Amino acid sequence: MREVLAESAFALFLERGFERTTVDDIVARAGVGRRSFFRYFPSKEDAVFPDHDRCLADMTAFLEAAGAAEPVGAVCDAAHLVMRMYAAKPEFSVQRYRLTREVPGLRTYELSVVRRYERTLAAYLRTRWEGAADGALRAEVVAAAVVAAHNNALRTWLRRGGEGDADAAVEHALATVRQVWAGGREPVGEAVREPEGDEVIVMVARKGAPLWRVVQQVEAALTEE
Amino acid sequence: MREVLAESAFALFLERGFERTTVDDIVARAGVGRRSFFRYFPSKEDAVFPDHDRCLADMTAFLEAAGAAEPVGAVCDAAHLVMRMYAAKPEFSVQRYRLTREVPGLRTYELSVVRRYERTLAAYLRTRWEGAADGALRAEVVAAAVVAAHNNALRTWLRRGGEGDADAAVEHALATVRQVWAGGREPVGEAVREPEGDEVIVMVARKGAPLWRVVQQVEAALTEE
Repeated sequence: MREVLAESAFALFLERGFERTTVDDIVARAGVGRRSFFRYFPSKEDAVFPDHDRCLADMTAFLEAAGAAEPVGAVCDAAHLVMRMYAAKPEFSVQRYRLTREVPGLRTYELSVVRRYERTLAAYLRTRWEGAADGALRAEVVAAAVVAAHNNALRTWLRRGGEGDADAAVEHALATVRQVWAGGREPVGEAVREPEGDEVIVMVARKGAPLWRVVQQVEAALTEE
Repeated sequence: MREVLAESAFALFLERGFERTTVDDIVARAGVGRRSFFRYFPSKEDAVFPDHDRCLADMTAFLEAAGAAEPVGAVCDAAHLVMRMYAAKPEFSVQRYRLTREVPGLRTYELSVVRRYERTLAAYLRTRWEGAADGALRAEVVAAAVVAAHNNALRTWLRRGGEGDADAAVEHALATVRQVWAGGREPVGEAVREPEGDEVIVMVARKGAPLWRVVQQVEAALTEE
């Protein structure tokens, strides 16, 4: 029922435009009563984005299961869930992207959805960094960076008509965040590993080198086996 | 006139609530005609945030004047303009913050304002990093991180009733972004300085150390005189 309503709504939005389609039009097409629509969707806007609630729930569950995983890695992994939701229905996602560009109300709705993902990631990081210096601040900065990187990859993929490897594109974008923010490398579910005192990195950089480039080198050195 | 309207509107929003105040109520209190209101404000929401348009224009002008300044530093400096706008009217800012928490429509409006600042910063960074690898991606990630850091400081200041040094709080928050992202150190308005080939940094870090801590050390070493 929910899916039938969402499909009827979306078909009408494409045919007649979002503003000119009423809830009555949608329920007539779906062959159900008006109250059925509002049982599933609080508003017309919600019918355009029927999968975000589930994806947010999946993200929360994923982060709860992440346990002692390195926190920045965990939120980057969680961000992939959103791209996978879009990539599961490429044609629908691309059509919706075009529709959203044209309807200010949908863009506003989208901003509030993006903010909900950001808050979900930040809440997890805040818990993980509780008591750490500037933990809450870092949680919000990293969550915002992860969302921005993800959305850059998502928008690029949508503008290209949903072609190409969506997951790889997100991973490439998230690498900019992992590089500068990811911390200790404790594997998921295990205790923090004892530091091995003898293992050191020596690195040489030119003064005045862009910090992000130095960080790339440090990251490469730290993860080398 | 614009200021009188904004003040009348805000006084009524506090007295009667945002939803229950009409544009007719506002113009009656300000002693002007209904069309005057819409000459200055497209909507009731805009009257709650009368200074953002000017602040966005100031930010754009500031970034245009930044010339060859180090780009991450420039956007961090630009973010201070927003906090200064709030700090110029602490009592109004705190009352508005409380009002915004209670009215979903104002929260949505605020999200779109935040997004406009983020886009302004990202557009500047994109220009500065044109042609660089992942320039557009980095521009969006850094802009989002700057906005998140700024807003963390702003919200903390607002929750404390607008007390304390707002500018110092923003600077502290932005340090987390400057540390990991700020690049070359060309001074404003001068050509990029020639790298001095002999100047090197040698740094030693333990494998498995959190990257952000290593970055702090690198940053400290790179900026040391």
